[in-house]
Amino acid sequence: MPRDAINVGIIGFGTVGTGTARILLKNSDIIAQRLGFPLRLKKIADIDIERDRGIALPKGILVRDAMEVLNDPEIEIVVELIGGTGIAKELILRAIKAGKHIVTANKALLATEGNEIFLEASKSKVYVGFEASVAGGIPIIKVIKEGLIANNILSIYGIINGTSNYILTKMTDEDMDFSLALKEAQRLGYAEADPTFDIEGIDTAHKLTILASMAFGIPLSFDKVHIEGISKITPSDIRFAEEFGYKIKLLAIAKAVNGEVELRVHPTMLPKDYLISKVDGVFNAVFVKGDAVGETLYYGRGAGDMPTGSAVVSDICDIARNINSKAEPEATLKESPSALNIRAMEDVESMYYFRFSALDRPGVLSKISGIFGSHNISIASVIQKGRRVGEAVPLVILTHKAVERDIRAAVEEIDRLPVLASKTYFIRVEGPEPE
Amino acid sequence: MPRDAINVGIIGFGTVGTGTARILLKNSDIIAQRLGFPLRLKKIADIDIERDRGIALPKGILVRDAMEVLNDPEIEIVVELIGGTGIAKELILRAIKAGKHIVTANKALLATEGNEIFLEASKSKVYVGFEASVAGGIPIIKVIKEGLIANNILSIYGIINGTSNYILTKMTDEDMDFSLALKEAQRLGYAEADPTFDIEGIDTAHKLTILASMAFGIPLSFDKVHIEGISKITPSDIRFAEEFGYKIKLLAIAKAVNGEVELRVHPTMLPKDYLISKVDGVFNAVFVKGDAVGETLYYGRGAGDMPTGSAVVSDICDIARNINSKAEPEATLKESPSALNIRAMEDVESMYYFRFSALDRPGVLSKISGIFGSHNISIASVIQKGRRVGEAVPLVILTHKAVERDIRAAVEEIDRLPVLASKTYFIRVEGPEPE
Repeated sequence: MPRDAINVGIIGFGTVGTGTARILLKNSDIIAQRLGFPLRLKKIADIDIERDRGIALPKGILVRDAMEVLNDPEIEIVVELIGGTGIAKELILRAIKAGKHIVTANKALLATEGNEIFLEASKSKVYVGFEASVAGGIPIIKVIKEGLIANNILSIYGIINGTSNYILTKMTDEDMDFSLALKEAQRLGYAEADPTFDIEGIDTAHKLTILASMAFGIPLSFDKVHIEGISKITPSDIRFAEEFGYKIKLLAIAKAVNGEVELRVHPTMLPKDYLISKVDGVFNAVFVKGDAVGETLYYGRGAGDMPTGSAVVSDICDIARNINSKAEPEATLKESPSALNIRAMEDVESMYYFRFSALDRPGVLSKISGIFGSHNISIASVIQKGRRVGEAVPLVILTHKAVERDIRAAVEEIDRLPVLASKTYFIRVEGPEPE
Repeated sequence: MPRDAINVGIIGFGTVGTGTARILLKNSDIIAQRLGFPLRLKKIADIDIERDRGIALPKGILVRDAMEVLNDPEIEIVVELIGGTGIAKELILRAIKAGKHIVTANKALLATEGNEIFLEASKSKVYVGFEASVAGGIPIIKVIKEGLIANNILSIYGIINGTSNYILTKMTDEDMDFSLALKEAQRLGYAEADPTFDIEGIDTAHKLTILASMAFGIPLSFDKVHIEGISKITPSDIRFAEEFGYKIKLLAIAKAVNGEVELRVHPTMLPKDYLISKVDGVFNAVFVKGDAVGETLYYGRGAGDMPTGSAVVSDICDIARNINSKAEPEATLKESPSALNIRAMEDVESMYYFRFSALDRPGVLSKISGIFGSHNISIASVIQKGRRVGEAVPLVILTHKAVERDIRAAVEEIDRLPVLASKTYFIRVEGPEPE
C-alpha cells in the first residue's frame, strides 16, 4: 500500500544536521523502497541560513525560525540537532505537546533532562528516537532495546568518546604525552577548543547514562555516575600497563552486581588481547554481555556528519514505519519493576594499578604495603625500575581485587607519608585476576 | 494497555529449541515488562518427547505431532527449529497458509527456498523472522534491515561459520594441520561427524545468501555464490601469510562493484591489523560498510543454544509487538528496483597468494612469471626458502590486483608445466595493495 510521503523537519543545520539532510536527499530512493513510502525533508531551521554547507537543498526548505518547523501541521517528525540543554529542551517539549514525534542526537539533554522528556512524550503518545545520541553510527540503542530484548543484560563496556580514544591511541602508539596528543586532536578537529566534556569523561557519562537506562530499565541517572577523565594519565602509565599486558582505555561501564547497577566512567586497564582493547583512534565500540547471548561487541564511527546522520535517519525510518502502521507509541523507557539501585562507588570491587612517586623507594614500599595490608588490599605485582638517589622515581603496584572504600582510605593514609613526591594516582583494572 | 499473552509454538526441540524454550521461561518477566504484555510458550513439538533436556516445562506443553502446533488456533507465532530443507519447508508453508507468523533459524532452507517462502508469507500477510539464521546471537539482520536502513551498503565481510574459524585459529595459533584441527573441533562438539557443510563453505554461503539479499535487495541467490572451503589450507600457507602480514579467514564477501554484486565464500588473506582478523575461535563477526555510516563491525557467538535462542526470541518479540499494534506485515524482502546483477566470478578482481610446489625452482620462477606476465598478472612479492636439491619445496608468490579470469587461465597453463610437483593452490587477498 503506497502512501504519501511522511514529512520531516530538522532544527539545527550544523554538522549532524547537514549529514542528515544529505542522506535524506541522496538516498531518498532506496529509503523509500525499503520503507514502502517516501520521506520528505520539508523544512530545516537554523539561525544561520547563509553559510554554504556544500549541499543543494530544494528551494524554500531553509528557514530561520524553529517555530516554522513546529507550527507546520504537515511535519510529523521533528529532528532536534542544535544540542545543549537550553533552547533544545524547550523546542523538544513544545514539539511533543504539538503531537510531533522527536528524533534527537542530544546526549547531554537526554542524560540530564531525559526523564522529563520521556514522560511528556509518553503523555502525548509520541515517539522519541535517540539512536544518534550514543556511539554515532553504531545502532547500539536498537541492539539493546530490540536485538537483545530476550536478555538480562549483565554488563556493558563502552569506548564511546572518539576524542579520548584518539588521544589515548596517540599516547600509546607514539609515546606522546597527554597535552601534545590533545593538541593534535584539536588540530585535526577531533577535539573542541574547550575539550573538557570529552577528556574529563562527561560526554562519556552522558552516553553511559542513556545506555544503562535502556539496558537495565532504570531512570536516567547522570548524577549518580562516577566520572574520571584521562588528563592525569602519563606515558609511563601506558608503558607500565603494557608491561602488565594491558591497554588503557576510557571506559563507560554499566554492570549488574548483586541486584545493583554500577555506573562508572574512568580510565581502565584492559587485557591487551581483548577485542575492545584493539579499538583505536576515533572509533567507538560497545561490548554488551547478556545472560543468553553471551559476549557481543559493536564497532564503528562514533561521530561525524554522515555516520551520526545514518543513525538519525534510521530513527526517522522506525518512527515513519510506526506512523504508517498506526502503531500506538509505547513508553520510551520501561522501568524495570525490580527497580535496581545504583551502586555506591565506594562499594565497587576492582583491581587497581597504582603509580607512586617516591623519594626513597625501599622504605616507601614497606610502608605502602603495610598500609595496603591494614586495609585488606593484597598486592599482585610490583615494578620498581631505575635507581636515581634522591630523585623521585615511579613505583608501580598492581593489586588483587579490592573494595574502592578500602582503596580510598589507604590512599588517604599513603598521601600523608612525607617520602611521597606527589599525590598517588590509580587506574582501575578489569579482566581476570593475576595469579 | 496490557493485553493477553501472545502464544508461541515451537517445532523442533533440539539445541536451539531448548535454548529458546529456556529463555522464554526463564526471562519471561523481563520480556513481558519490555513488551508490555507476556509471551506464552504454548506447545513444543518433537518426535522425541522422552529425552531429558534439563529444562522444566509446564505440563502438557510437549507434543509429538507438529500439526498440534499448526492446528492450535491460539498459537499466532510458529517457530521452526527442526532444520533441513524437507519437512521444515512443508511445515512452514502450512503454517503460513494457516495465517501464522514464522520464526526460523533455518539458513539452508531460506537460502535455497526462501524466495518461495517469502512470497507465500507476503500473500498471507504474515511475518517471517530469521535473525537466528545468520551469526547466531548477533542481531545482524536487524542491523542491516533497520539500523543501517539509511545506507547504500557497499560491502559485507563475514566470519559466519564458527567451525571453520575455530579450525583456522587452531592452525594459526598452534601450528596444527587441518585434519588434526578438525578432529579437535569434532571432539569439542564444534564440528559434526560429517563436517562438509561447515568446512567446505556451504553453510557460510547459505548465510551470505541471506545477508546479501537483505543488504542489496536482491532475490536469494544461493546458486550464484562462488564457494570454496578451507580443507586445502596448509600450516605453511598460514606461516607465509604471517610473513606477508596477513591472517587467513574463511570469509563471506558481498560487495557492490560497478552496479553488480559479488557473492563469494573462500579463504581470504586479510591484513592482520584489521579488527576482523582478530576474531578467533568459534566467534563470528560481520563487517558492514555503508555509504553513510562508514565501517562497522558486529561480533558475538555464532552458534549455541542460548545465543541462537536469544536471536529467535528477539524475532518473536518483534512480531509480537507488531501483532499487538496491529501493523500490517510488509514484504520480508523488498527487491531493489535497480535490480543488481550477481557478478560472474571470472570478473572479480583481487590480489592473489600462490603456493607452487616446484621441483626445480629457479627455472620454475622464470616460467611462472612469464606465464603471469602474458596474462596481465603482476607479481608483488616472491618467497623462496630453503634449498633441497631434487625435493619439492614451496615457492610462494603474491600478486597485485588481477582479474580472476586471467588467474584461472594462468593456473591452467602453469599446471601443465612438468616441473610442478602438485597442483597450484591460491588464496585471494583483501586489503590495500602492496607497494
